[in-house]
Amino acid sequence: MSKKVVTFGEIMMRLTPPANKRFIQADKFNIIYGGGEANVAISTANYGLDSYFVTKLPENPLGQAALNEVRRFGVKTDFVARGGIRLGKYFCETGASQRSSNVIYDRAHSAIAEASSSDFNWNEIFADADWFHVTGITPALSDNMADITIEAVNKASEHGVKVSCDLNYRAKLWSREKANQVMSEVMQYVDVCIANEEDAEMTFNIKSGSNIEKGELNIEGYRDVAQQLIDKFDCELVGSHLRESYNASVNGWLVVLFDGEKFVQSEKYRVYIVDRVGGGDSFAGALIYSQLTGKSLQETAEFGAAASALKQSIPGDFNHMTLSEVEEVAGGPGSGRVKR
Amino acid sequence: MSKKVVTFGEIMMRLTPPANKRFIQADKFNIIYGGGEANVAISTANYGLDSYFVTKLPENPLGQAALNEVRRFGVKTDFVARGGIRLGKYFCETGASQRSSNVIYDRAHSAIAEASSSDFNWNEIFADADWFHVTGITPALSDNMADITIEAVNKASEHGVKVSCDLNYRAKLWSREKANQVMSEVMQYVDVCIANEEDAEMTFNIKSGSNIEKGELNIEGYRDVAQQLIDKFDCELVGSHLRESYNASVNGWLVVLFDGEKFVQSEKYRVYIVDRVGGGDSFAGALIYSQLTGKSLQETAEFGAAASALKQSIPGDFNHMTLSEVEEVAGGPGSGRVKR
Amino acid sequence: MSKKVVTFGEIMMRLTPPANKRFIQADKFNIIYGGGEANVAISTANYGLDSYFVTKLPENPLGQAALNEVRRFGVKTDFVARGGIRLGKYFCETGASQRSSNVIYDRAHSAIAEASSSDFNWNEIFADADWFHVTGITPALSDNMADITIEAVNKASEHGVKVSCDLNYRAKLWSREKANQVMSEVMQYVDVCIANEEDAEMTFNIKSGSNIEKGELNIEGYRDVAQQLIDKFDCELVGSHLRESYNASVNGWLVVLFDGEKFVQSEKYRVYIVDRVGGGDSFAGALIYSQLTGKSLQETAEFGAAASALKQSIPGDFNHMTLSEVEEVAGGPGSGRVKR
Amino acid sequence: MSKKVVTFGEIMMRLTPPANKRFIQADKFNIIYGGGEANVAISTANYGLDSYFVTKLPENPLGQAALNEVRRFGVKTDFVARGGIRLGKYFCETGASQRSSNVIYDRAHSAIAEASSSDFNWNEIFADADWFHVTGITPALSDNMADITIEAVNKASEHGVKVSCDLNYRAKLWSREKANQVMSEVMQYVDVCIANEEDAEMTFNIKSGSNIEKGELNIEGYRDVAQQLIDKFDCELVGSHLRESYNASVNGWLVVLFDGEKFVQSEKYRVYIVDRVGGGDSFAGALIYSQLTGKSLQETAEFGAAASALKQSIPGDFNHMTLSEVEEVAGGPGSGRVKR
Amino acid sequence: MSKKVVTFGEIMMRLTPPANKRFIQADKFNIIYGGGEANVAISTANYGLDSYFVTKLPENPLGQAALNEVRRFGVKTDFVARGGIRLGKYFCETGASQRSSNVIYDRAHSAIAEASSSDFNWNEIFADADWFHVTGITPALSDNMADITIEAVNKASEHGVKVSCDLNYRAKLWSREKANQVMSEVMQYVDVCIANEEDAEMTFNIKSGSNIEKGELNIEGYRDVAQQLIDKFDCELVGSHLRESYNASVNGWLVVLFDGEKFVQSEKYRVYIVDRVGGGDSFAGALIYSQLTGKSLQETAEFGAAASALKQSIPGDFNHMTLSEVEEVAGGPGSGRVKR
Amino acid sequence: MSKKVVTFGEIMMRLTPPANKRFIQADKFNIIYGGGEANVAISTANYGLDSYFVTKLPENPLGQAALNEVRRFGVKTDFVARGGIRLGKYFCETGASQRSSNVIYDRAHSAIAEASSSDFNWNEIFADADWFHVTGITPALSDNMADITIEAVNKASEHGVKVSCDLNYRAKLWSREKANQVMSEVMQYVDVCIANEEDAEMTFNIKSGSNIEKGELNIEGYRDVAQQLIDKFDCELVGSHLRESYNASVNGWLVVLFDGEKFVQSEKYRVYIVDRVGGGDSFAGALIYSQLTGKSLQETAEFGAAASALKQSIPGDFNHMTLSEVEEVAGGPGSGRVKR
Repeated sequence: MSKKVVTFGEIMMRLTPPANKRFIQADKFNIIYGGGEANVAISTANYGLDSYFVTKLPENPLGQAALNEVRRFGVKTDFVARGGIRLGKYFCETGASQRSSNVIYDRAHSAIAEASSSDFNWNEIFADADWFHVTGITPALSDNMADITIEAVNKASEHGVKVSCDLNYRAKLWSREKANQVMSEVMQYVDVCIANEEDAEMTFNIKSGSNIEKGELNIEGYRDVAQQLIDKFDCELVGSHLRESYNASVNGWLVVLFDGEKFVQSEKYRVYIVDRVGGGDSFAGALIYSQLTGKSLQETAEFGAAASALKQSIPGDFNHMTLSEVEEVAGGPGSGRVKR
Repeated sequence: MSKKVVTFGEIMMRLTPPANKRFIQADKFNIIYGGGEANVAISTANYGLDSYFVTKLPENPLGQAALNEVRRFGVKTDFVARGGIRLGKYFCETGASQRSSNVIYDRAHSAIAEASSSDFNWNEIFADADWFHVTGITPALSDNMADITIEAVNKASEHGVKVSCDLNYRAKLWSREKANQVMSEVMQYVDVCIANEEDAEMTFNIKSGSNIEKGELNIEGYRDVAQQLIDKFDCELVGSHLRESYNASVNGWLVVLFDGEKFVQSEKYRVYIVDRVGGGDSFAGALIYSQLTGKSLQETAEFGAAASALKQSIPGDFNHMTLSEVEEVAGGPGSGRVKR
Repeated sequence: MSKKVVTFGEIMMRLTPPANKRFIQADKFNIIYGGGEANVAISTANYGLDSYFVTKLPENPLGQAALNEVRRFGVKTDFVARGGIRLGKYFCETGASQRSSNVIYDRAHSAIAEASSSDFNWNEIFADADWFHVTGITPALSDNMADITIEAVNKASEHGVKVSCDLNYRAKLWSREKANQVMSEVMQYVDVCIANEEDAEMTFNIKSGSNIEKGELNIEGYRDVAQQLIDKFDCELVGSHLRESYNASVNGWLVVLFDGEKFVQSEKYRVYIVDRVGGGDSFAGALIYSQLTGKSLQETAEFGAAASALKQSIPGDFNHMTLSEVEEVAGGPGSGRVKR
Repeated sequence: MSKKVVTFGEIMMRLTPPANKRFIQADKFNIIYGGGEANVAISTANYGLDSYFVTKLPENPLGQAALNEVRRFGVKTDFVARGGIRLGKYFCETGASQRSSNVIYDRAHSAIAEASSSDFNWNEIFADADWFHVTGITPALSDNMADITIEAVNKASEHGVKVSCDLNYRAKLWSREKANQVMSEVMQYVDVCIANEEDAEMTFNIKSGSNIEKGELNIEGYRDVAQQLIDKFDCELVGSHLRESYNASVNGWLVVLFDGEKFVQSEKYRVYIVDRVGGGDSFAGALIYSQLTGKSLQETAEFGAAASALKQSIPGDFNHMTLSEVEEVAGGPGSGRVKR
Repeated sequence: MSKKVVTFGEIMMRLTPPANKRFIQADKFNIIYGGGEANVAISTANYGLDSYFVTKLPENPLGQAALNEVRRFGVKTDFVARGGIRLGKYFCETGASQRSSNVIYDRAHSAIAEASSSDFNWNEIFADADWFHVTGITPALSDNMADITIEAVNKASEHGVKVSCDLNYRAKLWSREKANQVMSEVMQYVDVCIANEEDAEMTFNIKSGSNIEKGELNIEGYRDVAQQLIDKFDCELVGSHLRESYNASVNGWLVVLFDGEKFVQSEKYRVYIVDRVGGGDSFAGALIYSQLTGKSLQETAEFGAAASALKQSIPGDFNHMTLSEVEEVAGGPGSGRVKR
Repeated sequence: MSKKVVTFGEIMMRLTPPANKRFIQADKFNIIYGGGEANVAISTANYGLDSYFVTKLPENPLGQAALNEVRRFGVKTDFVARGGIRLGKYFCETGASQRSSNVIYDRAHSAIAEASSSDFNWNEIFADADWFHVTGITPALSDNMADITIEAVNKASEHGVKVSCDLNYRAKLWSREKANQVMSEVMQYVDVCIANEEDAEMTFNIKSGSNIEKGELNIEGYRDVAQQLIDKFDCELVGSHLRESYNASVNGWLVVLFDGEKFVQSEKYRVYIVDRVGGGDSFAGALIYSQLTGKSLQETAEFGAAASALKQSIPGDFNHMTLSEVEEVAGGPGSGRVKR
């Protein structure tokens, strides 16, 4: 029987102008549903794990559409609470060349941000679960969500469920001080930590030494960051994806992992970006799958790097790659030949 | 020099699934900007009047896009305040046949709903103005907007500006009690009142005798409603559009006017609906134009009926008909022959 | 706990040129998934019943997409067999005015047509089931599907599951002789029979007396047909929807039911057609829901007529109407007023 | 071997905003190629006749695209001259309900308008031809086109080719005086004349007695017009389609024919309009086919009415109906039932 | 008079999700018609040769649409047989970055796969023909197509028609053993052989020494392959295009030719891929044109490389480049400056 | 109060097939409005300057749509003359990889080309103006436009308005001789000259030494060209953007400026092109803004290079970048990281 993975967080409606248009030009939006933890659940479902996404959604057609999109791709929604006023939304303009992507959040007062502890029965949710994943976005949504997240990781721990957390610092949601305080508590229960780009610095003031603005990477610096995270929170594994941002159309992309002893680095991919949103979540999903199925550290890095590079060739947040499709690329050059 | 018309209210982003899709099926939204008073300003600008729309919009690309759309069609935006958190939005599913259109509001905390009195300099705004139009939606947005609306009509009155108000009762925004209380104050300053369908009943408990659910019209009942409104608020003119809702695809449509003495009725049109939103506002805009240019009561009714029937053949809120195009149809059968 | 409904049949990919284009003009197809029994399961899921769709789908992305679409809208797919060569497809050109819709089947050798008895474990499927629905299309797909269908209704009967069957005669799939022979066996186990238009005549040589080509309806003739079906197969209920085909854009639509004693007739709707495919299945789904929840015969007819008229205002095969939305229209005129 | 039909005139690029948008709202145009005589050639090719379209097109990709579109649907383009500066274009906004369709011509200086006599070798073109069709638009394009048209009908006559002409008066192209003078010469060689709506009145001051603005038809008046045309120009057959323009969405449509003795009238269709452009040309094409294949006068009227009603359910100028599809509707009610 | 080229094979409907979507996300397909030999005929027609495409297509609108698309672009269809059950189809997902394009064939039982020898009158077809082109796909369709292909090349040879063959090995259609056996017979009549990538290895076990998975090219290895093909089958010319697959978005592309004495190599292009399907066929078409018009070996390589690089910048299978457009790029760097 | 900028020239409707399609494949056009001087006015309006665009447009919906598009983005249209026959149009096919973009002009007889001197009241237009911008396209439109342009720059000079001119040589509009003669007169009044690529050579026979076909740049050669322009016409500043055309998808892009003493060069960007049209105009607009707000020469170059590189990532002619967005990139690498 396949392993059971639970993820918990917000799923939003993303509204994006088609064909590289700016907001100011748009007369249509593509509707995309996504959110860090939902994206991870899609990935693990695609690889064959028994995947549950836990959230709260309003009882209206927009909330229903978000739930349907997750269910459509095989994620189980049995523990989704319903109620609240509105679905969180954000507007995202897709960058190109020297022009950055631009995000306008419209997520205040969302159903999940205003959820209460009684919306989620963690004992029921974690029964027979093998893995629990959450990101730093979830506790940043509101004070009660900070409490509920801490309750969740605590409960997961009690049930012997492995806990992973992607720090995912969001400056528009909370201050560095607040993040440091809440995430320090959350991290008490975290076994596997994902810390990308400046997340460790923004959240815990742990610096990687890379200058992300310049697109230069200090790969060795990441080992250092990982070591500090392990020292501080006693995690068993720290992972990071590294993006060399040449411009908004083409990026370098690789993955590093550190388990306190070994530091491994994946193949580096030159990614021609279709949609970069969800790249990091794809790495998280791939990492969870790899760890639950006994891949080695190097294999985990390769699987994670391939999965997350591939995601960026697909429109939308979700990583619609099957297990065999990712494995075919993992560790290789990703030459993209036609299959026929 | 052309007459100056000022309208005041909210403009929202309307998100509508294309091609009769339900929300639950949509993967694209058409983006439409509109709102009662903005729609009226577009109409009067199209007929050649000097038209100003007053509102408050956030300082972000979505607020800018709303402002641009109004400016694009010749409405002046000199008095638009900028600031606040978000642009009001609503989701609208277009009905067909027996299926009603469905609206989900997402307008709480919009820039205009949270505007303050200091955002609008009414003395400057009403200098040289000839007409001021507002609807019952604007004071319903929030308590401060109720106050600001009363301030606005009061100031307009002081400046000798003619004031029109479309009652436009919205049950999702306020209670009948609140509406009655606020609108009774607003109506002290109103010269021309538009009261459609059940608006007079919902706002002031004045009944028309029509059963709108049945699609049957009691035209004479409207004279009675108008008489009561005139008696109560001393208006000089009351207008109503009458919709015979056979189903969501085909409606009957006509207009009645009462000036306290004469009661006139327009040609009735069988409207094959492309987009019914903004039909009532087109009537208001046409009425303002007609009154400012000295049309007779019957001519006003015919111009108003033609304008508002024609609007419903156009996608979006705005009535993109020119003066001559409306006049060509007004009073006639609307046979829709090709011009070439 | 909600009642459990099982349906069994083929789901196909429907490819339709957008915007009234003919095949010969098309450079895009809209992709729609649907099939009689899948459509029924969607309806009953929308009304809150525990709904299972049983079929066989190929192990490729097209088969997966069909499964996903059903799952997306809340139908359970636990008993869907996987394997076979291809997904059945059909091309459908949407008619308008005097031009009929046109269907080109491309469904030969589909996974389900080549399914074998071992693909379906009926004992497991019917455990705790309350209702089983199938149509005359399923046994028409192939000789083995005829056998499997007979096995299924037989098993359902053994498990005390109520069985409904929509005759749905398809001349392109089998001859009248073959249909008569197989369906006569199937009908031994059927409790509720749906026989629309010429189905009873084509399948069992039972005539309704209506001339469907003329668009004239002989409503009383339907009582006669129903009586004959009851006499011959001992059903407890016979239902029919009646379409007055004025042209391909506007139809009259009503529903009749006969339980051997009472003959009831629903409100008649003037339907402005968006997509007529799935109209009959919506009637079947509504009938099953009505019977499982104890509606009276007249209520069943009204609920069924409203549900199936409403379906035709929605693009695609599936009836995306909620229980409350259908109930709001049922028995009334369907005036299609906006909800806001 | 099938009969050879030749038509001669302009084919233009039509640019139309999608989905009922007005020009002022459009950010996309659908590209449609069409023109009276090209449309007729498409119809006769669809019915199986050997059809040639003669025109002049510029040697650039737009001219090529127009030629390709005609060739795509089986019309032969062997005699199309190439050269000149530009392809004629027009912008057409599709009306709905009370809003008329609106046409903006941008056809001045087109390749065909500036063609010279040497561009067309009529002896070669008419070798073995059975029928030649032209409309009143072709000679209206320019003075040299008036001369070339007269040369063409004259030559056709010399070769014993039957000549048909659709008067098709266009006020934007020439005056009534000029039309009268040129068309009087053209009519010397015309065997079959098509005169719709006000064409006979505008061109030759022959009145039908119908008030087309009112949408009322005086069918008997058409016999009178036909009699006058026969008296004046000695034609053997006069045909007219009659449009009852209730509004831009729904029309009544029928056809009358007069051969100097018998006056016949077709079934009348209630047409729900998808695209009305090309309706008249479809009647002409159907008439030519009917006459070349020996249909009776009544059969010709029914075939012509069905063909041209059906055209209006198809987007674009061309009538993509096959012979058997038209025959299935001809003389019947056009109930639009699905074929499957 | 221009030279006559005949090509023979299958044309399929290709269904492709727009905008880089995966099958699982698609709700629309772009419809593209193409197939190796049809693509070649389009190329030679574009360069001004008299081009015939021979195939068999079903007598339904889908078969007609495929025929129309070929005819639209100037290819003659006089020898297309009609009949059979279905048009061959395939679904193609466009790759990007590290994600490969993915093809699902749905071509079994197509009209051409089930064609019989009597469908094609080769004596008539090859009268006055100068060149005949076929690929290894055509005989792979079915046993009878293997026989018919051998008959065709034999007949072409008898008529003194030059024969070219693109080996085009398709693992999904036949085994290497079967391919070797049939193609060895076909090659008896082939004058010009195109062998790309692994085709020679898969079909005849002749290895190029390149590792296509790595994207590394062993250009000299191709001379060796060509020499072996010439030795074995006595061809006069062997050509190959070489693709350096950096990833699915950017490829290196060049062409080599060997005539038994000289080995030439073209300019290498860095291709930013819009649609790679049909690239190889564009090379074949350009080679045929070059050889029929007396270009030198080096000129042939440059023309072929430019033509096939340019094709990959155009959506669809067909290479819509004119002679002068290709010649402008041939031999140069392809800097892509605007023409205005 | 912000500075007032006036630009004068033609705005055209650009019709572009979507998604890299060639004209010959297109069945839709995207509608884009643009023209050199209109584009510049959009840029300066976006940066907060008081911007007026002067032109002549026909009194029809297409002329209105062009005016609306300019007004929508904050450019003032008070001095736009109305009248004339037609709006200028051009068709533009977007290149990719080795395939160049292709332009077909259809602008003859446009309203502005046939404008007369009395259409523009320069004294009124230049009252309080700070800057006037025109390009070499405007005088090339017709002889009267050459006269009017000379009148305009002369008048601007009289009013003490700074004058800039982008040479913008268009071979399809006039000969080198005519250009030399007219532009020599225009340049008498020009303070700031923009001369890109071969403009100086084509207009005044001043060579840069770069071989643009090869994509190689001789940056020092540009200093030489600038020196010659200053020597000849006594300008105070000469600017050029330099495009390294690797192919139609990826370009190198930088900017150089020379003020007679200092020669500065900007950061070079690797531009992944979305729409290259308007790149040069964005440089001009940025240069005007920089000079009017006192930026240094180096800052001007960086702001200009960033603005014009960013433009090429946006569909359409207009540069929808705000002041702060350009400044964020100016002088830096343009790494295109997401903002959230």
